[in-house]
Amino acid sequence: MNMSRTERSRERLVVVGGDAAGMSAASQARRLRGPDELEIVAFERSHFTSYSACGIPYWVGGDVPERDRLIARSPEEHRARDIDLRMRTEVVEIDVEGRRVHARELDTGATYWTPYDKLVIATGARPIRPDLPGVDAPGVHGVQNLDDGQALLDTLAATEGRRAVVVGAGYIGVEMAEALINLGYEVTVVNRGKEPMSTLDPDMGRLVHRAMEGLGITMVDDAEVTKFLTGDDGRVRAVATDDAEYPADVVVLGIGVRPETELARAAGLPVGDHGGLLTDLSMRVRGHDDIWAGGDCVEVLDLVSGRERHIPLGTHANKHGQVIGANVGGGYATFPGVVGTAVSKVCDLEIARTGLREKDARRAGLQFVAVTIESTSRAGYYPGAAPMTVKMLAERRTGRLLGVQIVGREGAGKRVDIAAVALTAGMTVEQMTALDLGYAPPFSPVWDPVLVAARKAVTAVRSDA
Amino acid sequence: MNMSRTERSRERLVVVGGDAAGMSAASQARRLRGPDELEIVAFERSHFTSYSACGIPYWVGGDVPERDRLIARSPEEHRARDIDLRMRTEVVEIDVEGRRVHARELDTGATYWTPYDKLVIATGARPIRPDLPGVDAPGVHGVQNLDDGQALLDTLAATEGRRAVVVGAGYIGVEMAEALINLGYEVTVVNRGKEPMSTLDPDMGRLVHRAMEGLGITMVDDAEVTKFLTGDDGRVRAVATDDAEYPADVVVLGIGVRPETELARAAGLPVGDHGGLLTDLSMRVRGHDDIWAGGDCVEVLDLVSGRERHIPLGTHANKHGQVIGANVGGGYATFPGVVGTAVSKVCDLEIARTGLREKDARRAGLQFVAVTIESTSRAGYYPGAAPMTVKMLAERRTGRLLGVQIVGREGAGKRVDIAAVALTAGMTVEQMTALDLGYAPPFSPVWDPVLVAARKAVTAVRSDA
Repeated sequence: MNMSRTERSRERLVVVGGDAAGMSAASQARRLRGPDELEIVAFERSHFTSYSACGIPYWVGGDVPERDRLIARSPEEHRARDIDLRMRTEVVEIDVEGRRVHARELDTGATYWTPYDKLVIATGARPIRPDLPGVDAPGVHGVQNLDDGQALLDTLAATEGRRAVVVGAGYIGVEMAEALINLGYEVTVVNRGKEPMSTLDPDMGRLVHRAMEGLGITMVDDAEVTKFLTGDDGRVRAVATDDAEYPADVVVLGIGVRPETELARAAGLPVGDHGGLLTDLSMRVRGHDDIWAGGDCVEVLDLVSGRERHIPLGTHANKHGQVIGANVGGGYATFPGVVGTAVSKVCDLEIARTGLREKDARRAGLQFVAVTIESTSRAGYYPGAAPMTVKMLAERRTGRLLGVQIVGREGAGKRVDIAAVALTAGMTVEQMTALDLGYAPPFSPVWDPVLVAARKAVTAVRSDA
Repeated sequence: MNMSRTERSRERLVVVGGDAAGMSAASQARRLRGPDELEIVAFERSHFTSYSACGIPYWVGGDVPERDRLIARSPEEHRARDIDLRMRTEVVEIDVEGRRVHARELDTGATYWTPYDKLVIATGARPIRPDLPGVDAPGVHGVQNLDDGQALLDTLAATEGRRAVVVGAGYIGVEMAEALINLGYEVTVVNRGKEPMSTLDPDMGRLVHRAMEGLGITMVDDAEVTKFLTGDDGRVRAVATDDAEYPADVVVLGIGVRPETELARAAGLPVGDHGGLLTDLSMRVRGHDDIWAGGDCVEVLDLVSGRERHIPLGTHANKHGQVIGANVGGGYATFPGVVGTAVSKVCDLEIARTGLREKDARRAGLQFVAVTIESTSRAGYYPGAAPMTVKMLAERRTGRLLGVQIVGREGAGKRVDIAAVALTAGMTVEQMTALDLGYAPPFSPVWDPVLVAARKAVTAVRSDA
């Protein structure tokens, strides 16, 4: 190939993975450096770029009418911004020494090496599929990507039976339970934990259990799935645990995900205890000046416990991409870490958490007080005032806020943001009692529920001192 | 009177005003010190204690079915907690030197002096009634207390005409406009300002103007009321401005309130530029060791501008009461100040603000950048995703957050709390872009609207540098 001098003097950025983190990084880098300065090549092994995996339960449940609504930016839109996007092409090896990646076109089988000056690894996460008999039977579905979602919808359309079993009661599990109950299925959620939503303390998870039962969902906690039973047609017909069998016309796996880092491990890049790539604050892979990583394949610093965690979440992936793109593009940005905020919804139940659970605090060597209060989303006399339970953890003696969990109805979930900002700022619960939060009867009681919890936590810290 | 030694050795707390601040102070003091240690005498000139004035528009509009729902604690409930509550009794003089107050029973005309060891002044605010012809005509109503609310309801019940004019377009004005439109009235809001909601910058107030018009409310801005025209029966029949007359079967005044501090002024207590009592951080009246003040009759420190403001709001009054009660009761608490957070609702329109407007920032000597963004309350593809406009002010060079204004639909209002906490913590807009806020499609786009605004503000701060 005959390259002009200009051509050869361009830097080359290679992005592995075309979803939120990778394509945000590519787009942000492009914004800062035009095609004359920076060539951008991105590899994506699926049919889709920049889609909202978090939206899949709502598409399956019918709240989102069509798949393409979940796609923030199509391959064509990326290409129109001078990003050389190679779809259905998997990177199968990274040669760190030689600064090149080995790519394979999935449809043709052709392979080739591509050099890079800078590399972004955004390979995401892969769903955990339990190694159990029958897990590959027709009718057993994961819901990690858009292809999974379509396959599940096809199964639902082709199946007459209305019994659905969801395995796992984390975010995906409870959201899929909502999707299926909205579609008119009898839904059973089989969950290994003592209570659903193990991202909450069990006492708060108990509230979710009760509320989901109230919605007509059968909750089976503390149950280990042992196999997926199939019928004469080979299709799944039940989910078995040690104790029981749960008849199923369709099974959805919502067990969680692991960082997709085999490629990075094979290349000798550093991986942490949770299997995610380790980066510095600029999202550069530790020890590698020209390799960045972000999204569901990395571990992030938990600012409250001071430990690394793996938190696959689109909002983090987008921030990572933004930070990587700024740095690759010659700007400067950092991702300081997370406080572990998450919200979820099952029908009209809102579930939120931020910071540390009791067991996280213990593991981090922190002593704490924990309080729980009941309040309402609006002034008690205002129509639609809905009950809300707030649990708050504060450090012993110092009174520093450590975590908040909220279970309630409309208006409960996003209240966790108050605590997320307070955690980030390192506030004490006493400082929180003076927070000037928005008050009017349609929005809050005169003491916002988060402030009611903070007041009780102050009393607990004092009487513990 | 024959007093036992115990009786005489008790301290005596006198509370002037039996609404939120006064009765919170009394209750909190009682919690900390029993009747053997502290005698509590409280004077209230109306028929009610501890009621939610903020709830009156919703009672008038029919959302709250009966008046008593607005009463958090009745006189009897206070008395059951050993508070000697004297209703319909007005304090007409404070003798600071002699440590006593002069009380008058409104129903009997009897007067008497009562000594105090500690005094709490919680006299609230009084509505501004313009000194204009016809302002006292039947059919012209304020809505400051429960008696006002009942009088307005009586007028509405007795009046056949369906034309209502609201004078003033602040919180009370817009809330009363909602109440009246919900009752089926033709509503006109006549407002002195260029736009409604002068607590917002005019560009954001413009959005409120448009949205209220969209709800069928006639908005007349930039109009000074000159008189209230009356009919042959003496009742109000129209509101006149320099330019026009607006026919009215009922008129509601929502012009605002002033601190009720005549009593305190007469006693030589310090009053600030806005007419409110001046206190220290423990809510003690400046220069007076044994006199506290709180609620709508005091000025509060604005933590962003460093200046005193008058912000009559139930949530502050309750916090003041709590702080006063703790200090009077032998504990320790402070009220550090406010950031000026407020939320309001007109039908499905949510309006929120915190921190400084452009003119506040200028007045405080701050230079700033201002940005405005459009986003949605939920992921764009999720049902019910509603548009939201967020305006953000950040200090020039430092990038410190100075203020946020939000106008949108469901889910817009309480998002202001994110900014309220960030302001309290003194965060920069760059720090805010990394905030770990709750994300899931039913709750937020992948970048929360507040973060979208923060990102734009970062760019503005940088390009201004």
